[in-house]
Amino acid sequence: MCEVLKSNFDEIYPEIEDAIKKSSFIAIDLEFTGLHIQDSCNNMMFDGGAERYLKLKKNCQSFTISQIGLAAFTHNPTNNCYTAHVFNVYVFPQSCTAIDERFSCQASSLKFLCQYEFDFNKFIYEGVPFLTHEQEERLWTLSNQDEVISDLNESYFAPIFTKISDWLRQADNEDEMTIPTNRGVSVLMLQAKICFMFKEVWTKLSSKNEVVVIKVSREKREQFEAESSSWNERIIESLVGFSKVFRLITDSKKPVIGHNMLMDLLLMYDKFHNKLPKSWSDFKTELHRILPNIYDTKHLASKCKKLLEDHNLVHQTNIQDLFQILQSEKARFAAFNSPTIGLDSRAHRYDEKEYNHEAGYDAYICGYVFLRLCHLLAADKMIVGMKPQRFIDYIHIVQPYKNSVNLMRGNVMFVKIDGKDPKSHRPDWLYVVARGSNNLPPADTLASMFEGYASVDIQVIDAKTAVLAVSTFNGSKHILKAFRQNKIVSVSRYSLVKHCKPVRYGLWISILAMGAFCVWTFVGDK
Amino acid sequence: MCEVLKSNFDEIYPEIEDAIKKSSFIAIDLEFTGLHIQDSCNNMMFDGGAERYLKLKKNCQSFTISQIGLAAFTHNPTNNCYTAHVFNVYVFPQSCTAIDERFSCQASSLKFLCQYEFDFNKFIYEGVPFLTHEQEERLWTLSNQDEVISDLNESYFAPIFTKISDWLRQADNEDEMTIPTNRGVSVLMLQAKICFMFKEVWTKLSSKNEVVVIKVSREKREQFEAESSSWNERIIESLVGFSKVFRLITDSKKPVIGHNMLMDLLLMYDKFHNKLPKSWSDFKTELHRILPNIYDTKHLASKCKKLLEDHNLVHQTNIQDLFQILQSEKARFAAFNSPTIGLDSRAHRYDEKEYNHEAGYDAYICGYVFLRLCHLLAADKMIVGMKPQRFIDYIHIVQPYKNSVNLMRGNVMFVKIDGKDPKSHRPDWLYVVARGSNNLPPADTLASMFEGYASVDIQVIDAKTAVLAVSTFNGSKHILKAFRQNKIVSVSRYSLVKHCKPVRYGLWISILAMGAFCVWTFVGDK
Repeated sequence: MCEVLKSNFDEIYPEIEDAIKKSSFIAIDLEFTGLHIQDSCNNMMFDGGAERYLKLKKNCQSFTISQIGLAAFTHNPTNNCYTAHVFNVYVFPQSCTAIDERFSCQASSLKFLCQYEFDFNKFIYEGVPFLTHEQEERLWTLSNQDEVISDLNESYFAPIFTKISDWLRQADNEDEMTIPTNRGVSVLMLQAKICFMFKEVWTKLSSKNEVVVIKVSREKREQFEAESSSWNERIIESLVGFSKVFRLITDSKKPVIGHNMLMDLLLMYDKFHNKLPKSWSDFKTELHRILPNIYDTKHLASKCKKLLEDHNLVHQTNIQDLFQILQSEKARFAAFNSPTIGLDSRAHRYDEKEYNHEAGYDAYICGYVFLRLCHLLAADKMIVGMKPQRFIDYIHIVQPYKNSVNLMRGNVMFVKIDGKDPKSHRPDWLYVVARGSNNLPPADTLASMFEGYASVDIQVIDAKTAVLAVSTFNGSKHILKAFRQNKIVSVSRYSLVKHCKPVRYGLWISILAMGAFCVWTFVGDK
Repeated sequence: MCEVLKSNFDEIYPEIEDAIKKSSFIAIDLEFTGLHIQDSCNNMMFDGGAERYLKLKKNCQSFTISQIGLAAFTHNPTNNCYTAHVFNVYVFPQSCTAIDERFSCQASSLKFLCQYEFDFNKFIYEGVPFLTHEQEERLWTLSNQDEVISDLNESYFAPIFTKISDWLRQADNEDEMTIPTNRGVSVLMLQAKICFMFKEVWTKLSSKNEVVVIKVSREKREQFEAESSSWNERIIESLVGFSKVFRLITDSKKPVIGHNMLMDLLLMYDKFHNKLPKSWSDFKTELHRILPNIYDTKHLASKCKKLLEDHNLVHQTNIQDLFQILQSEKARFAAFNSPTIGLDSRAHRYDEKEYNHEAGYDAYICGYVFLRLCHLLAADKMIVGMKPQRFIDYIHIVQPYKNSVNLMRGNVMFVKIDGKDPKSHRPDWLYVVARGSNNLPPADTLASMFEGYASVDIQVIDAKTAVLAVSTFNGSKHILKAFRQNKIVSVSRYSLVKHCKPVRYGLWISILAMGAFCVWTFVGDK
């Protein structure tokens, strides 16, 4: 595992490039600063792909990525061994002239990261910057203006400015002066700012990463300038940062593997590619264009229930459980010629201990699970004994699951990035009306009334009516039966024709105010 | 200077209580995660107190406090010496059942903190929790329910649960087992959760702050429970955290000193007291009730221009500059019997070096500046030689400035918390209309046209009209004169009667979308 920070990014970038180039596939995982920006953005069983997209979009535009795990798996057919080259990258939205991101944090999400000992100083001080294409273009249009693209605030720079001025004014002093810096300051931006303010100096970095200011003649200065790219060009290049890696991945067209990865896909799109499009279908089109080969191990595992059980393996879809199950001897010897899966030499600590929720580790175990499931699926298809498989054989086997991404607690099990989403697998919604002259009880009381029968989500329509999404057909049947004589509410099957009354002005206002996308289901269906 | 963290808060709380009790006044300073949540919330010269309040309210509700500096100054009349007891407190909105704050960060504000080497791990891992009264009440209503108030997520707790179950099932093992924890886990919540799940155990903390689970009989367990407050009570008490200190300050009714402190006041109100009220006047009423004696050194310094110049001191209103000026020998000996101002023994590092933008340091220099200005003002009022002053004499002298808080780039210099805000000190707004059939140039081009004359803020009304707030009367006069013959725009004095056309639907939509409060000025005035 290689830890990638702003300070070593340039050095490690060629290694990442090489690993992606040589890999069969790339597994990814993301950590981020929050899950749900408001309660109305929680997952509900009402949501199809389009509704969920609007919620996730709101979440992803609010929060930011704190860490990205990349595991590029290379295959050596000679010994049928896969090696995972793992990069654990901290990222942070660098601010500068013209760009100053606001992002949200959810306290519980940061506390979750704390439980797994996440280093927030590495995130904020040392996170590799990133830009969308649109942001990068905006900076390029500024790059020729006579101003340095910088994030240094005046109160920090002013004393440095004074110090250099004083030093330059004295004729008989040293030809070099050193500006002490700290890890919170971009030395590139500081150098640019100094060279911009003073025309008879040049700068270099000391071995301790301090900025050394050198007195030079105007001619010498012009020569230095001619020899290198402009400061602004160098600054923009550095700000593109991790987006360069994302572009390597999209350019490679290699299979990208994730686990329950819908939010990961939206986040990467929003931060490294472009603003998220308005509609689900536009998002799918563009995502498919840049990442045409996506596999979600949560979806894949959900399709492997029988396969695992046939091999006497427990069926789970949680990534940590899957890894444990598939790493067992039983799983590895369930089919002949299972590949060996190893880690590159720097990542061996992942062999010794679990590092759950470290993005690099989670990416690695996701790729591991993918390979093991591929091999079991391949073995299942074989009539005679199992030979070592090429990676291309695996890809052929999992073709039916390509671009299908798991949907948590939605009205479909998964969404299809390169086609139409499947039909809902949930029972019809139920329509709940308060009996007599009473109003409905509050939503949580209402929910508790149905709790015993099935998992439900409730969408309150007005004081007297609500709609219920029920997890299972059996549960729905039981509810209908149990509430037939209920004195507080009547429950019936929801009918679009019968029940969808014109949405009144008052409701619209509250929908707009809450951003309650789940209600769109009713409105949009008309 | 005493660094206050979640882990030492209980221990240091009595010291803070003592320092506040003995103090003459308390100086405060805050660091926070962002300044402006969106561009429409920037300071503009259009803003009076009420308009600025709406902008600041939006900012303060979005961002959170990361660090609070408290400097409680005690006076020893015997040697006329003030000692600053400084506490530098990290705070973080702890999440738990029922409370899960979302807060925003502005990338440039975090980078600003980086330049001053702020420790984000201390903020997020070790920040002292806080609650408003309303949040605390909500938790108390939950405290009797049969559930533990906790932030532990299931995936963290599940393996611990399994481990304890296994251990309990074996009859012949040790009577104690230790659960290793890390700094990201609340041991109080972990203990509560364990005791809630297992009825024949009790817990204690080891010297290494690990949770030790002890097998006890049901009777023993009941005895332990009877001897201490309930887990939920203890958890809520710990979650109130820093709000307890804020309540000490409000209960003490001591003078509270800050520098340019309007945002600090809103933030403390919003995080430690209650949700910010809708209107500026409601905020002022309630703030004045809880903090009746506020002094803003930025406002005070702005009123001391002549005083400082009379003593041959440079006039500045920036806190760092003021501190340097007033700490000089010239300033200290400008009047007889200046008090000595020192730091408590733990804060001596503040004497050796500047720690700008460390909240504790900034609070200390703010209190220092307050005392020095008080003394100079007192000396100014004396006809005969200056005696050592009591603190009450100072307070008498600065009475005219009480509850006046500086307003940055507004249409007034300051706002009055306990009364009516002053009248605008800015020239009338100017009304800019595109000549002929053309539209106005874009806002930034438009701004650059007036730049040479004065500092201006622009509020675009529609494609052809804009309103201009100009910093100085002279500037306004120059602009009117210079643009008399201008071919692109006509500029005239803005008249509410003549120019305030009905606000059209389209404009309203964009106002709502942008949250552009500055436009309210026009709308609200009708």
